[in-house]
Amino acid sequence: MKRIGKHTLEFTVLPTILSHASIAGKREAEGPLGADFDQTFSDTTLNSDSWEKAEAQLQKEAVNFALDKGELTAEDIDYIFAGDLLNQCISSTFGLMDFNIPFLGQYGACSTMAQTLFMASIMVESGAAERAAAVTSSHFCSAERQFRLPLEYGGQRTPTAQWTVTASGCAIVGKGGKVKIKRALAGKIVDFGVKDAANMGAAMAPAAASTIYEFLRDTATKPEDYDLILTGDLGLVGSKLLYEQLEVNNINIRKNHKDCGLMLFDLDAQDVHAGGSGCGCSASVLCGHLLKRMERDELKNILFVATGALMSPTSQQQGESIPGIAHLVQLSTQ
Amino acid sequence: MKRIGKHTLEFTVLPTILSHASIAGKREAEGPLGADFDQTFSDTTLNSDSWEKAEAQLQKEAVNFALDKGELTAEDIDYIFAGDLLNQCISSTFGLMDFNIPFLGQYGACSTMAQTLFMASIMVESGAAERAAAVTSSHFCSAERQFRLPLEYGGQRTPTAQWTVTASGCAIVGKGGKVKIKRALAGKIVDFGVKDAANMGAAMAPAAASTIYEFLRDTATKPEDYDLILTGDLGLVGSKLLYEQLEVNNINIRKNHKDCGLMLFDLDAQDVHAGGSGCGCSASVLCGHLLKRMERDELKNILFVATGALMSPTSQQQGESIPGIAHLVQLSTQ
Repeated sequence: MKRIGKHTLEFTVLPTILSHASIAGKREAEGPLGADFDQTFSDTTLNSDSWEKAEAQLQKEAVNFALDKGELTAEDIDYIFAGDLLNQCISSTFGLMDFNIPFLGQYGACSTMAQTLFMASIMVESGAAERAAAVTSSHFCSAERQFRLPLEYGGQRTPTAQWTVTASGCAIVGKGGKVKIKRALAGKIVDFGVKDAANMGAAMAPAAASTIYEFLRDTATKPEDYDLILTGDLGLVGSKLLYEQLEVNNINIRKNHKDCGLMLFDLDAQDVHAGGSGCGCSASVLCGHLLKRMERDELKNILFVATGALMSPTSQQQGESIPGIAHLVQLSTQ
Repeated sequence: MKRIGKHTLEFTVLPTILSHASIAGKREAEGPLGADFDQTFSDTTLNSDSWEKAEAQLQKEAVNFALDKGELTAEDIDYIFAGDLLNQCISSTFGLMDFNIPFLGQYGACSTMAQTLFMASIMVESGAAERAAAVTSSHFCSAERQFRLPLEYGGQRTPTAQWTVTASGCAIVGKGGKVKIKRALAGKIVDFGVKDAANMGAAMAPAAASTIYEFLRDTATKPEDYDLILTGDLGLVGSKLLYEQLEVNNINIRKNHKDCGLMLFDLDAQDVHAGGSGCGCSASVLCGHLLKRMERDELKNILFVATGALMSPTSQQQGESIPGIAHLVQLSTQ
């Protein structure tokens, strides 16, 4: 691989997506992308006796589907990169342990799908792996009770709040697939001092702006060079802030930007306020919807920029700010 | 790099340790390795107003020391791989954000030092990075209140319990150092059904046995080929179980095995029951003590096998088992 500019990596062996799958819950199934998911569950407990186990099950199903669709078995996968929002990434542990694949836990909050894809690509490009899996998940009910309030409390949500998506996405990276991972850029932690956990779009937008700006500078490309610039889950508020922050540097992405958090739900009809969020949001939009569109040649060259809010319930209670991070992966069929 | 056996990686460019540092608390300073740490704090709050901020400060100091000792600046580091035990790896976020280095959060519980070293080595070996930092931490007070009981409660600890180490270790990986990272093996999640969070050595021992067994098989080497086989933090109980489990496969490591959790404290005098634990345990023993011994040619070829217990307070309260994981890195001056 080549390093271009300051931190951007350009792959030369070209790791590709061999297979991908996404699993989602009831509300996600009812949204605009509902038909794209490989499997949806109307019972979001997935027959498990806790929300945490239900989320673990989402990851397990996503990996199983991705293996099946790629005509692969767990034995064919050299590494699995996974993470989630739960304390100590517990749904990844319990969801993936039965596969018996070398496991490297990742934590990038809602940016985890781009991070795991980044790591899996490095492994394949460098020859460390023949194939590596990237997987992540989130679940509305496990996230809500951990980060915010017990569901039973029935608290009112603010207009800037986002809805944690109940979903998982898995991509298997190896050689010979149609969609190539062409370039990648790992983000830095960016803290603008936002402290409102009900406005995470605002907390993450500066990180997305920083990563997109650096990538375009490193590669000497323009937003128009890409069919789509897809951010993870900035939602309504964060997307507007991203435009404004990039425009300070004379970069206008309005025409070809979309946000996973805004694509997954019908904001007017589905009562999700500022949009979707959670690791499973960008993971399921990528692995359910976007990669299918790329395989159908509707999109040829996209930037996938998953964004994460690096907060914990403890840091929130202690009045700390919410630093953001955004990792970028360029996907191309050209 | 070359893949040997089933999953072991053998580096050919040979990433090396360019610099390393360790920071520790009061009890650690009073232990047998006290003189080896670069800095120790008798006030374990590190002048911070929370234990979580104190732990973040440990990581910050470790990275600063490692940079200084290597005559490097943050600008010289292409990636930082870091993680910790706190929910959402929050001490890594707050400890490292000011360095402005591309950040890839890792979660491997107490195995994190080996995992970050593994990832940093891959980046340097593959040419993705010129230099990459690996850092992790733990803090007795932040861990105790998160995983077990409030300190003020003054609960009695069981004889199998381990003491979370207050420390951080940082290693900077690049080309041209004396200590080479020669081979590495990422572990699988191993669950023997242990449920007692006060006996984590027992929960982690099967993972250590599995990783050591696979590595020796992949490389066709014997325990005697290494000056030292160093496990992360199995403590007294876990170390014995490790011997027994390996002996089932006719592997005897008793003569050249040591455990970081048993090296860091004087078990009789320091009231730490079955030994030390926590991400900072193996990190500070490696970055404070072992790498110095390798640089002095007292040790030439060692296996560093950090072990992690993949549990969360929620999974414990739900009565789940504690799956373990162990990642291995072979360090050599030969």
